[in-house]
Amino acid sequence: MTHPLFEKHKATLDAAVATIHGRGYWTPYAEMPSPRVYGETAADDGKKAFEACLGKDFVLDQPGQTGWAATEQSPYGIALNVRYPVCDPEALIAAAQTAMNSWRKLGAEGRVGVCLEILERLNKRSFEIAHAVMMTTGQGWMMAFQAGGPHAQDRGLEAVAYAWDEMSRVPAEAIWEKPQGKNPPLKMKKHYEIVGRGVGLVVGCGTFPTWNTYPGLFAALATGNPVIVKAHSNAILPAAMTVKIAREVLAEAGLDPNLVSLAVVEKRAATQALATHPAVKSIDFTGSNVFGQWLIDNAKQAQVYAELAGVNNVVIESTDSYKAMLRNLAFTLCLYSGQMCTTTQAILVPAGGIDTDLGHKSFDEVATDLGAAIDKFLTDPAVATAVLGAIQSDATLARIAEAGEYGTIVLASKKIDHPDFPQAEVRTPVLLTCDAADEKSYMEERFGPIAFVVKVADGAAAIALSERIVKEHGALTVGLYSAKPDVIDAMTDATLRAGVALSINLTGGVFVNQSAAFSDYHGVGMNPAANASYSDSAFVANRFRVVQRRYHVE
Amino acid sequence: MTHPLFEKHKATLDAAVATIHGRGYWTPYAEMPSPRVYGETAADDGKKAFEACLGKDFVLDQPGQTGWAATEQSPYGIALNVRYPVCDPEALIAAAQTAMNSWRKLGAEGRVGVCLEILERLNKRSFEIAHAVMMTTGQGWMMAFQAGGPHAQDRGLEAVAYAWDEMSRVPAEAIWEKPQGKNPPLKMKKHYEIVGRGVGLVVGCGTFPTWNTYPGLFAALATGNPVIVKAHSNAILPAAMTVKIAREVLAEAGLDPNLVSLAVVEKRAATQALATHPAVKSIDFTGSNVFGQWLIDNAKQAQVYAELAGVNNVVIESTDSYKAMLRNLAFTLCLYSGQMCTTTQAILVPAGGIDTDLGHKSFDEVATDLGAAIDKFLTDPAVATAVLGAIQSDATLARIAEAGEYGTIVLASKKIDHPDFPQAEVRTPVLLTCDAADEKSYMEERFGPIAFVVKVADGAAAIALSERIVKEHGALTVGLYSAKPDVIDAMTDATLRAGVALSINLTGGVFVNQSAAFSDYHGVGMNPAANASYSDSAFVANRFRVVQRRYHVE
Repeated sequence: MTHPLFEKHKATLDAAVATIHGRGYWTPYAEMPSPRVYGETAADDGKKAFEACLGKDFVLDQPGQTGWAATEQSPYGIALNVRYPVCDPEALIAAAQTAMNSWRKLGAEGRVGVCLEILERLNKRSFEIAHAVMMTTGQGWMMAFQAGGPHAQDRGLEAVAYAWDEMSRVPAEAIWEKPQGKNPPLKMKKHYEIVGRGVGLVVGCGTFPTWNTYPGLFAALATGNPVIVKAHSNAILPAAMTVKIAREVLAEAGLDPNLVSLAVVEKRAATQALATHPAVKSIDFTGSNVFGQWLIDNAKQAQVYAELAGVNNVVIESTDSYKAMLRNLAFTLCLYSGQMCTTTQAILVPAGGIDTDLGHKSFDEVATDLGAAIDKFLTDPAVATAVLGAIQSDATLARIAEAGEYGTIVLASKKIDHPDFPQAEVRTPVLLTCDAADEKSYMEERFGPIAFVVKVADGAAAIALSERIVKEHGALTVGLYSAKPDVIDAMTDATLRAGVALSINLTGGVFVNQSAAFSDYHGVGMNPAANASYSDSAFVANRFRVVQRRYHVE
Repeated sequence: MTHPLFEKHKATLDAAVATIHGRGYWTPYAEMPSPRVYGETAADDGKKAFEACLGKDFVLDQPGQTGWAATEQSPYGIALNVRYPVCDPEALIAAAQTAMNSWRKLGAEGRVGVCLEILERLNKRSFEIAHAVMMTTGQGWMMAFQAGGPHAQDRGLEAVAYAWDEMSRVPAEAIWEKPQGKNPPLKMKKHYEIVGRGVGLVVGCGTFPTWNTYPGLFAALATGNPVIVKAHSNAILPAAMTVKIAREVLAEAGLDPNLVSLAVVEKRAATQALATHPAVKSIDFTGSNVFGQWLIDNAKQAQVYAELAGVNNVVIESTDSYKAMLRNLAFTLCLYSGQMCTTTQAILVPAGGIDTDLGHKSFDEVATDLGAAIDKFLTDPAVATAVLGAIQSDATLARIAEAGEYGTIVLASKKIDHPDFPQAEVRTPVLLTCDAADEKSYMEERFGPIAFVVKVADGAAAIALSERIVKEHGALTVGLYSAKPDVIDAMTDATLRAGVALSINLTGGVFVNQSAAFSDYHGVGMNPAANASYSDSAFVANRFRVVQRRYHVE
């Protein structure tokens, strides 16, 4: 008997599976916040639903609640004061383990159906979640809607599609009949059951509380595991909304809602205790190298899927579209004030300059022109504030303030007033130049709107430096601008050796810091910036096991 | 252009992939050493080829050779004195890395074709390899042929099939075209390349030097990685033959033979240095908990696939085939003198005895009857020596000698003279009884022909004890005898919780310690006895990554 939610969403699932194999463009979740798609009242309803959370208790009815906590400060300076349930981690884990058995028994079809129903509900609530993302992370509205809503849902669906693709190739049962020469064959019936490995812990980050959470959440869930979402202390609301919707869908489907819960913990030690609990078998983590490495070193009972810091870089060897290249790079550096794990930090340019369609450009000209392109792009304050968003953390503000120490400033960061949020901390990017030898400056992640134009000997040296940066410090994205096929080939080989995704000659509406679900692998999982990818089969295959039984039959 | 070896073996590959999805019986490698299949002269040729190795240098033409080593002592007491090349591990690793690039460029089809060609050559050399397995491990001839030859090849092919199944679902390229409303679509071409994660190290064991080596060897190879085989110091010859054949096939295919090499290291410290080398990205290990845990704790740069010790157990609650049950268990306990990672060690029997088709049997009767069944099975010395083989290590001989300390002896171990090998150490199993409370006796692995009939309160207690043993100490196999559906259901649930494969009411020609490739998952990978399974998608998916590049197209 097929689960009704599996039937309901089967066409979406089939299309998702076909797309991860073909890797063309596809999505069931509209990225434009259009009233025709989301409904005429969706924008207003979503805003009101978000506002209704402010200053209130966010009730989740989770077990073991010991109190309430309100820890979020909006980068836009508005008062949030949402109080979240603080629950005893042991109670959450015990309840998750209890919920796991019926989740396993539901089978792969039922689990996938429930996951797709959760995603559909999340999609319908995209406006509400987008406001929560915007106000907790500092993202601009459109980015908060797209990356926090449909694009995050895409990545969740992608993980479910991979999980289904793996699980559906394990038969529920088989007859095994081995010939025995003249004697009757040996004949056995065998049953194969997919069993989740145990409690999944998903540790969210402060900048992308849904986009970086949904892959691990849905990969773990679909493969038979309960999930505890430990949100970043400053971006709880989007995660809390997500958990609440998941619990509602579970309850409506007659399942134990404690399969998905929210962990609000106020001290790092509590997170560490949760992460090293023997029942926790997988951890999805996005965040700092320090805590990520701590998890890898200490949470040995769990498989850790970690996205950490890196030094994303772009090699500019030559171009036949100089202005379009500068515009493309300028947008990348401005988007969400560079507070993306995929934003370019180091732009490697030959000391002798580059050949372009507008003639030869010296190293200094490239740097100056890029600074001018950023400045021009941000001329209109409405565009500037919409694209830049606000600075998410004081640490990033401090890095911007001290950036002059790292190199020669080509373009200084400016504070911009936000017309709607007077207390918002809006900053334009700072662009610096430095020499390739100044490794202390550009060769560690300086998260935020801080980028370097790095002077290298020549194109070959730039490619070699890019490869070394990726191998030693990691990167989620690498770009190349070159009009020469042999240079493109050399850079391609370098990225294959280093294990990083390469964007070549982006001059239009695609940016090196963006990846499209179902088509672009986010991260590769083989350089220090990440040990996993959104998504590939490795992201799901190790989250479950097959337990078999066999017996003779006539 | 399809690789000729891929074309040559495509029908075999397709059948293997179909079988891992259907999990019925299938093999391309005949398990009977029949002259009709293997050729009229195959048996003689194989024996001579084996004998030609004795007392000689086993030449492999590997880089960095610093000397020769001969470390093997045959459990059958014959002189081996094969001298193997000792090579500088750094040289092997450097050569492996050099070989890796062209192996990646060959593509998944070419790699899989080469792997299948190696497996076919191994199959043709099954007699020669079987003699090497028999004389280094102490296995009886038929087992050495089957488990060391075709069954090991099956497991290698199975790993290749899983690797292909995963890799073939990643397209080489795609066109991604995203609508932009009234504007022209964004259109990109994307390339996806499968990249192995780095050098694979396969650490073999002394008892199954091919069966436990081929899964990791072929999983790593097929997914784009070079492999260094570090054989057990007492079972090098089967691994050396395998490596030599692989190197021959590689060279014939115009590839770098250093993609596969043999590491003969004389000190544990050298193995440790190899295992923790930054270039080594996967380790497949079969062996002791001590070294396995050391690898997991220390070789953090690598994914470790470990098969360790466990306490395999069988619950006897009732049976409607008492004599057939005893015969089945007796064979399991005798086969290769219990020197299998899958051999039953603890047989859990209710204190009040069991209901059978031959009336109620008391606890003591069950134990005595099982001892008698073993004794009867070994009456014929020809059968006894063929099934028992010889004891592989002095440590196992010592454990047999001291077994009386662990419980009450029901059947004592006897030394048997081998008609062909007067110096062979042949021993019959020792069977003991003890109480469930005597956990120190039966609840740690006592590798070898040592089994316990453990007195438990009742059937429910037996199932609960079995589950606890698996969770705390691990197990690769668990069995149940019961005529009651509710008991079978309860045991099934226990094994699903504990994560172990269950064999129910085996009374014929299938034994709990045997698993069939393509159908039975060997180990589950979710209890302490193993963190991986032969084979599932998790065994291969994490051995490669997909590196992409993208650019605009018109």
